[in-house]
Amino acid sequence: MNAANRPTNAFYAQSGGVTAVINTTACAVIETARQYPETIGKLFAGRNGILGALAEDLIDTSLESDADIARLRHTPGGAFGSCRYKLKGIDENLAQYERLIEVFRAHDIGYFFYNGGNDSMDTAWKVSQLSAKLGYPLICVGIPKTVDNDLPHTDACPGFGSVAKYVATSMREAGFDVASMAATSTKIFVMEVMGRHAGWITAACGLAGESADQPPHLLLFPEIPFDEAAFLARVETCVRDHGYCTIAVSEGLHDASGQLLSDMDTKDAFGHAQLGGVGQVVAQLIKDRLGLKYHWALPDYLQRSARHLASKTDVEQAYALGKAAVELAVAGRNAVMPGIVRLADAPYRWEIGVAELVDVANVERKMPREFISADGFQITDKCRAYLAPLIAGEDAPPYRDGLPDYVRLKNRGVPRQLEAFCI
Amino acid sequence: MNAANRPTNAFYAQSGGVTAVINTTACAVIETARQYPETIGKLFAGRNGILGALAEDLIDTSLESDADIARLRHTPGGAFGSCRYKLKGIDENLAQYERLIEVFRAHDIGYFFYNGGNDSMDTAWKVSQLSAKLGYPLICVGIPKTVDNDLPHTDACPGFGSVAKYVATSMREAGFDVASMAATSTKIFVMEVMGRHAGWITAACGLAGESADQPPHLLLFPEIPFDEAAFLARVETCVRDHGYCTIAVSEGLHDASGQLLSDMDTKDAFGHAQLGGVGQVVAQLIKDRLGLKYHWALPDYLQRSARHLASKTDVEQAYALGKAAVELAVAGRNAVMPGIVRLADAPYRWEIGVAELVDVANVERKMPREFISADGFQITDKCRAYLAPLIAGEDAPPYRDGLPDYVRLKNRGVPRQLEAFCI
Repeated sequence: MNAANRPTNAFYAQSGGVTAVINTTACAVIETARQYPETIGKLFAGRNGILGALAEDLIDTSLESDADIARLRHTPGGAFGSCRYKLKGIDENLAQYERLIEVFRAHDIGYFFYNGGNDSMDTAWKVSQLSAKLGYPLICVGIPKTVDNDLPHTDACPGFGSVAKYVATSMREAGFDVASMAATSTKIFVMEVMGRHAGWITAACGLAGESADQPPHLLLFPEIPFDEAAFLARVETCVRDHGYCTIAVSEGLHDASGQLLSDMDTKDAFGHAQLGGVGQVVAQLIKDRLGLKYHWALPDYLQRSARHLASKTDVEQAYALGKAAVELAVAGRNAVMPGIVRLADAPYRWEIGVAELVDVANVERKMPREFISADGFQITDKCRAYLAPLIAGEDAPPYRDGLPDYVRLKNRGVPRQLEAFCI
Repeated sequence: MNAANRPTNAFYAQSGGVTAVINTTACAVIETARQYPETIGKLFAGRNGILGALAEDLIDTSLESDADIARLRHTPGGAFGSCRYKLKGIDENLAQYERLIEVFRAHDIGYFFYNGGNDSMDTAWKVSQLSAKLGYPLICVGIPKTVDNDLPHTDACPGFGSVAKYVATSMREAGFDVASMAATSTKIFVMEVMGRHAGWITAACGLAGESADQPPHLLLFPEIPFDEAAFLARVETCVRDHGYCTIAVSEGLHDASGQLLSDMDTKDAFGHAQLGGVGQVVAQLIKDRLGLKYHWALPDYLQRSARHLASKTDVEQAYALGKAAVELAVAGRNAVMPGIVRLADAPYRWEIGVAELVDVANVERKMPREFISADGFQITDKCRAYLAPLIAGEDAPPYRDGLPDYVRLKNRGVPRQLEAFCI
């Protein structure tokens, strides 16, 4: 117990798909918690996210040096392990919540930080109800993170800006390559990017070009049902006018009936379809119908782990949100999520705001239709104005022997005090 | 005619697949040629490589400012366009060589710089024979370039070091990602890389890991026939020991009968098979046989155009070779190719050497078997010692608005003086 008469220790978990900067947030949470020794004792991290809490598999971050924690700021992936696991409601699975309380009580945990996306904010909200519904004194703060950029109540989600910078840079670079080769070789280049239902990452590819003749020539958004005839006509025109055509396509592209163009149909633990392969489907369609040689790229995890190309804005926001989360907790705020509030586009100014978790949980922020051009194949100036500051600035990691020098923490476990629990 | 009583102007062409640093070489050729105004007049570039010479489609680089030429140093792709086009022998297609002479004579061209890989050095060698066989006074110098790193008589090929740095960085970053997610999600990550018949790029992926437990856990080389049973056994062991398994696979992976594992079988203009897709074949095999969830990545052109992550060694060598080529030409050396001579591994020291084109043409440098571990799935310390200096150092391009600031040249054509020529 601390001066506020509540359990002293804190728990931090990473949830869902990891990003280039989720560890930047972890760094901020740990560094900031270390600044409040009278309020927060030890900070434990869940090994593999919330599963670590259920399994009483806690990592004692106090055993990590300040220097190593500082290196987390520039290390991609999830340093403590993440998971895709969504808690059911308290009424549906009371045993899980009782187990959480049992673990929290055994380790004197009074603060809960949950770093994730839509599904995770729902879990965070449910956990935040422990105090009111089950009488355990817990302060729960959600911290936004998702490359999909689809959380509400924040101008951008940490992780997105860096993916955006990566896909725009990659599209620009590949565009120079294809332009060089088009006269005698590849005329079509397709790059498939992430973003399940929201086309934010697809839109970011559009930043690569500064005029209509520059790559990417066409964007295929999940918001715009795929119209094969219109698309092929545009490809044909583009190749005629420029000699080649470059295309960014969302993994979530679907036709008017809702049918995904990708050919993979396995589902992840949240019940989302596992996507991938639509890039080749689109490229092959062009080859079959127009007879044009193609190359396609699937950056997959490379796009969300490319810490070497992180956006400085993104890194700064990821850190600021982790710091704000701890400060909110120290101030006794429960069931909230700090977010980014945009004050101005250019020059970009932002500050930290605070949203209620109940307003964030399970709400998906769609891309506004006005961010997509009328023909559905490009972004608008309004979209550029929104995206531009999010990729601004570089924040290169240190290099050693020619490669980014990332940290691997010791991740020593906290001795277990309870019986095993079957999830 | 210049003081040496030979045609004054020079011709430079880019050939084959472009790289992150072929323009660095172009920058060096142009900047160095501008330093010898008494010997070299204008430097013309072939639009789309050698095709530009045959079609009399020449670009006047003298119309580009020094500042823009300097920006070529950090711009990926081929600024003047490249092509995949291999000249036949002089005896087989005399008309083409006569056309070249006609174009060269019309534009007072006495120097020919050809920047490419194996096939291109063969073309360069054939052109270098014009002087002796057809009596046209031409000095021809080849300049090495190929991400495949398979040219002989040079310690490394410009372009390779930067791809190597990119794939090693990407594998390291994706490795951190997969490690985070493996407990509840993806356990297998496969990255498919370029390199037709030589496993240099695959080997470079191995630099990502500093010990056997770190990604990449397995490398699949084109030099080692794919042994499905041995491979699956290794994957299973790896997942058991580390919780996940990361794999880099060469596009040229084949089985003991020589059958490529990739499912694409179209051919490019040189008659090489167009590869791609083996990454998914390998990943799906693991899923089918071991039931493990996978992700796979296909960086494709991203790996060879990633100028934002170029190796400083690579950039410096690409520049030095372009400079040396012009200096060799000015000194009157015909039918040669400057190359990199390694003097020491650590600290890496190198100098420029000179090879005869006849010794380079069509010779493919294979990766030594001693660079691959006995089991065929990793690189050896000897290989690391060779590769390490090639990825050393960073050479970030300037950024503008959050993206690398690359140059697009004016590429103004030289007025045609001849009739059209059908290739």
